[in-house]
Formats: sequence, C-alpha cells, structure tokens
Amino acid sequence: MFYLMKVVKRNGDLEDYNPEKVVKSLKNSGVSESTINKILQTIKDKRFDSISTDKLYKIVYQLVKKLENKYNASIYSLKQAIMRLGPDGYTFEDYIAKIFAGEGFKVKTKQVYESNCITHELDVVGDDFFVECKYHNSGGITSGIKDVMYSHARFLDLKDACKNKGYHFRKLWVATNTKFSDECIDYGKYWGLKLMSWKYDGKNSLSYIIDTKHYFPVTLLPSVGREVFSLLSRKNILLITEVRDKSDEELKSIGLSADEVAKLRTDCDNIIEAAKKIEKINGGKK
Amino acid sequence: MFYLMKVVKRNGDLEDYNPEKVVKSLKNSGVSESTINKILQTIKDKRFDSISTDKLYKIVYQLVKKLENKYNASIYSLKQAIMRLGPDGYTFEDYIAKIFAGEGFKVKTKQVYESNCITHELDVVGDDFFVECKYHNSGGITSGIKDVMYSHARFLDLKDACKNKGYHFRKLWVATNTKFSDECIDYGKYWGLKLMSWKYDGKNSLSYIIDTKHYFPVTLLPSVGREVFSLLSRKNILLITEVRDKSDEELKSIGLSADEVAKLRTDCDNIIEAAKKIEKINGGKK
Repeated sequence: MFYLMKVVKRNGDLEDYNPEKVVKSLKNSGVSESTINKILQTIKDKRFDSISTDKLYKIVYQLVKKLENKYNASIYSLKQAIMRLGPDGYTFEDYIAKIFAGEGFKVKTKQVYESNCITHELDVVGDDFFVECKYHNSGGITSGIKDVMYSHARFLDLKDACKNKGYHFRKLWVATNTKFSDECIDYGKYWGLKLMSWKYDGKNSLSYIIDTKHYFPVTLLPSVGREVFSLLSRKNILLITEVRDKSDEELKSIGLSADEVAKLRTDCDNIIEAAKKIEKINGGKK
Repeated sequence: MFYLMKVVKRNGDLEDYNPEKVVKSLKNSGVSESTINKILQTIKDKRFDSISTDKLYKIVYQLVKKLENKYNASIYSLKQAIMRLGPDGYTFEDYIAKIFAGEGFKVKTKQVYESNCITHELDVVGDDFFVECKYHNSGGITSGIKDVMYSHARFLDLKDACKNKGYHFRKLWVATNTKFSDECIDYGKYWGLKLMSWKYDGKNSLSYIIDTKHYFPVTLLPSVGREVFSLLSRKNILLITEVRDKSDEELKSIGLSADEVAKLRTDCDNIIEAAKKIEKINGGKK
C-alpha cells in the first residue's frame, strides 16, 4: 500500500511520498541506520492517504528525539531553527553576515550607501558585493520576483554610482531562508545574480553550507528558548561556535544564570560532537 | 485667531491652515466667489485648533453641494471619484489607458511580453513605452521606492530583450492616483522615468490632465453608485464622455433601467456643462 501515500506540500501540491528523501535528511542529521529503519516502518504502519510536509516533519522529529537523541533531532530541525532567528529579519541578516565572514569575506551589516540619486541601506556589504536578505518566518513563503528585481535595481543604481563614489560593487547576492520562485531563478541566472536559498544550487545552498561548515545557529540548542535567545542575539552571539568560544564569565555578564550557562555549555558540546560524528560518517559522500 | 488653526495631514504632519489652498481647489471646481467667501467664513467661525485634511475636505464638499450645486461638488471630489474606481487596481489601469488613448497614443492593456529570461504582464502598453499603474484605495498611501525600482528593473529587462524580440521600449511611465515619495521622484529624475501622480509635475499631473482635458471618471456622476458603476465598468465605460456618446439603447442593453439611463444622461450633461463653465472662467489662468 506504500506507493499510495501522498505528501501535501506547503503550496498545496501533492507528490508521492518518497522514503528516500526522509532517509537522506536523517542521514544528514547523523541518525543511525537502525533508527532510520524504525522511522520508515513507523510511517509505513500509519498508512496515511496523505500527509502535509509539516506533519511528516513533526512525526520524524519526535521519533529521532525518542529513538536517537535530542542533538540529532536538533540538527534535523535546522530549517526550523533558522526560522526562530525571527520574528523580524534583522537577526537573519546578522546571521548571513556571519556565514560570509566565516567564508573569509570582510563584511559589515546595515551600511548606508549613496547612489547618484538616492540612499540605500544595505543588509550585508563585502568588499565588492552586497547581500540582500529575504527572511520569511514561515516555510510556505517563497521569495518572489519583485524582491529579486528590486534588489537588482538597487545593485544597478549603486553600480552606476561606483564611477564617482568611493566604492565598487561587482556582485549581488540575494539570500533567503526559504526558496525562490522559478522565475527568480531564471531571472537571476540571466542577469548573473547569486541566489542563495535553503536548497537551491547545491554547494551554494544555505542548508549545505550550514551543515558542512557548522554555521549552526544558537536556536538549534535545546536550552535556547525565547529569553536566552534574546540575551544572546542582543550581543550578536548567533553561532553555536561563538557560544563555545565564550568563557562562562562572559556568558554570565550578558545576563545568563549559572544554570543557563551550564546547560548552554553542555548543549554546545553535544551538538558540536554530534556534528563531527555526522561529518565523519558522511565525509566525502555529499 | 485664524492663524492658529492647524491642518493634520494624512501622514500625521501638522501644517498651518492655508485658506489659499481651499480657494484654489474651489476655483478649479468652478465655485463662485460669493460661495467661496461663505465657505472660508464658515471654516473661520468653527475655530478649530486642528482639523484633519479628510474632515476639512468633507466640510467644504458639503458646503459646495449646499451653497453652489452638486455638479461643482462632484468636480471638487475628483480625487475621491478616482478612489472609487477600486476596490482593486484593474479599473484604474483601464482608466489610465483611456487617458493615454485620449492623448493620441495607441495603447493596449494587460499585455504579456517575454524578456530574455522571464514573462512580464504589463498594465498599459503603447508603441515604445509602457505604463506601470500603482492604484491605492486610500489617500494616505504613498507609492514607494520599491514599486518604482521594481518597475524600472522590468523596463531594463524588457529593454535588454528588445534587440532580439519584435518590440521596442524607450520610455517607462509609472502612474499613481496618490503620490510618490521624495526618493521616488529623485530616482525617477535621475533614471529618466516618467512619473505621473495626483499633483506632481504640473501639467503632467493626473489632476491637471483630468481637469483640463475632461477625462472625468464616471464615478464623478452623482447617479453612479456601486451597482451602476459595476455595470458600466464591466463594459469598460469609464469616462463621462463615453457615457454621453452612447445611445439610450446601448446604455439599457448593458443592464441599466430607463430611469437610471435618464439620470445618467442629466448628470453627464450637467457635469460637462459645469466643466465647460470652469474652463471659461479659468481659461489660460492655469
């Protein structure tokens, strides 16, 4: 009966349930072979006619937490952890800046540039590029052509002004935590824009970069609830590796209790360890 | 005490009440000197500390209706009549197309054009230009830079494709029934875009063109309520002159009763007559 099960995507489209997709995301999250098999069997046994991607995700997440451990479940929930960088888009911009910085670029956030006619506030600026960030706090929202074309017009306006201003822009990145519509991708390819979305473009995709380079957001840590996140993000501490590199005193000085610091510490170590294990297992296979 | 009165603009700014502005708009609507004086005196007597532009407009409108006649009051309410072309922006696009057609351009609405990468549906297309329409159903909303830059990016994308497609675009108009932000105007000037808004740019402004060329919308007619408007707009009859040029039979054939046709007819004649009188009085003064 397996082949009858359908998955309802966020845009309302139906597609056949594909266990391979579940297997892939579970392997990426370091879940063991035996747990994966148990999870597939559980889904099979439930004999759904159809299920939403959200519901399917929640079932799998709970099973990983129960059958494997909470750190692998956290890594499995990466996309949701990025959503929790909201509610507005500012923290996502800072987070994207950290990824570019981690990749060796000198970047600044929220920079004001004058073109020959107007003023632009840019989300993330590197030496010869800038990044426009489109954050959505729900997975169903696709970044549309209007956003991408507006960003492109800003790029052209600033590129035009490079001649007589003290800056130069050669590339435009548009980064989103969800996905781009097909016409965004067609438009971006034609005009040479760099598009970074959750899954698009293989090794340039946000999920791939975070997974492989361990740019894990602090919202991945089980001990980071709304309040702890608020204290961390106020100090622009957004990556798990940044938490790890702070001393207990530094963490206490931002308003965290000794108990919260201890929990953070344990969670950080465990996530980093889990990520290293995954890397070992999947190393070279991606 | 007169000079103390303040007007609260829709964006919340306060400015001194300026009777000259009221006089100008009343003269444009063909209101007689004696009525204008009575209106100014009535406002003076009310001794407001402050009043919103909306409230001030309503008071003046009611006074024109009472002291002068309902056709001058209609002409005075032109901006509101344009708003009533809503609730969505499609009728406004058709209306803008009629203005361009009236000015001698061959135009089509809702045309699909392929660029080298994506498909654009354009609101109004002429021989070598297209018009992007930004309709707002409330006077407080300003068309912002994002809309104008997106339109510009569309223009550049289509201009780029002119080389190998069977069309050519040399100009972009962006038309709105409210106003553009200052940065839209700066951007538009620098990049050579044609901006048409309610008041901006003298003889190119929407209000000036409508007033002087009598592109009065049918929503200006006292007898055109929601239902009559719906019947007329379904047949793309949007100008008062178009109603005038139809026979009674044609108007009945679209679903109007004999009584409604008679009222329409009277209203049309009276508005056109009032407009001609205004033209005579103000001729050459604008």
